[in-house]
Amino acid sequence: MSNQQYSSSLLENAVNEFAKLPGIGRKTALRLVLYLLKQSEQEVESFGNAFIHLRKEIIYCKVCHNISDTEVCRICGNPSRDHETVCVVENIKDVMSVENTQQFRGLYHVLGGIISPMDGIGPKDLEIESLIQRVKDEQVKEVILALSTTMEGDTTNFYIFRKLAPLNIKVTTIARGIAIGDELEYADEVTLGRSILNRVDFTSSFK
Amino acid sequence: MSNQQYSSSLLENAVNEFAKLPGIGRKTALRLVLYLLKQSEQEVESFGNAFIHLRKEIIYCKVCHNISDTEVCRICGNPSRDHETVCVVENIKDVMSVENTQQFRGLYHVLGGIISPMDGIGPKDLEIESLIQRVKDEQVKEVILALSTTMEGDTTNFYIFRKLAPLNIKVTTIARGIAIGDELEYADEVTLGRSILNRVDFTSSFK
Repeated sequence: MSNQQYSSSLLENAVNEFAKLPGIGRKTALRLVLYLLKQSEQEVESFGNAFIHLRKEIIYCKVCHNISDTEVCRICGNPSRDHETVCVVENIKDVMSVENTQQFRGLYHVLGGIISPMDGIGPKDLEIESLIQRVKDEQVKEVILALSTTMEGDTTNFYIFRKLAPLNIKVTTIARGIAIGDELEYADEVTLGRSILNRVDFTSSFK
Repeated sequence: MSNQQYSSSLLENAVNEFAKLPGIGRKTALRLVLYLLKQSEQEVESFGNAFIHLRKEIIYCKVCHNISDTEVCRICGNPSRDHETVCVVENIKDVMSVENTQQFRGLYHVLGGIISPMDGIGPKDLEIESLIQRVKDEQVKEVILALSTTMEGDTTNFYIFRKLAPLNIKVTTIARGIAIGDELEYADEVTLGRSILNRVDFTSSFK
């Protein structure tokens, strides 16, 4: 598309800014900008400022490294949560995914990535040391490893496991198996094999 | 989705703002916000401000009512364009569509809608009077009606045509027919019938 189509450079600029976002093309960008043009000045102001404020004021929780408005995030600061159980995840999106299940009442620890020699990410680039320190300093009784089942995830899991081993706490990992609703016929062999090895008592599957 | 998933109200607010846009759900909104979080503070600032500035500073061209940065828009202010031909369109998106074809070197007139009694939009709500005035005052020799072929579009076309009739200028409408690349088999009868009635000289189809 030529740039001549825009009769206004303000419009062109706004469309360009939207089109920078992943998954937003120029047609969608234009549609969104024209939508914003129809809103009140105040609404557009709070739209634009939401991102500026977020980027400027966001900080990372000093305990779990999740994004937060305050020094200690909402989850870590909540006294009704189980402070003895820490779930280790790769990033803040994973925190949200686990929170959405409403099955976990403990705390989190966000690594900020996983060990990936191919991408030049080693244990020092991640929040692993702070996890070990946290387990030592606080009354953590169980660490749940909830990383991806990729080679990098397994490497990270194992690295953390070895670091935690001398501390004499429970280290668990989330269950791998056939997803609920999936048919055995279409499951891959590794998953199906693992789900047989790690079979659970029938009565516990109702919990 | 519960709001508990967000550890930060700044994040929650930014996601909510994105999710207000048409066609953007909460998952996409979160993805976009996390993308913005990774950008530099300066980039996010220019992102947010683009919309705020657009909304605050945009004006409508006093000649053609297209959106513009200046009192007279880029198109109307361009002396190399044909000021004797005015293409009447419904909205600014249509201006862009016509501009994209690069087949039109005249000026535009944006009505801001079409006559639609069902929606309570009458001729007085549109920029029709200003079009008539423009044709009277300036050296307009041809008005091209480029509205949708809906009942509302036809009504508006006819209303404008009647208003322009006494002024003794050429009034044309864009050609309707089988789209290029379409097969006759799948064309509707009205369009096919119209394309036969309005057939053109074979040699002119190469222009």
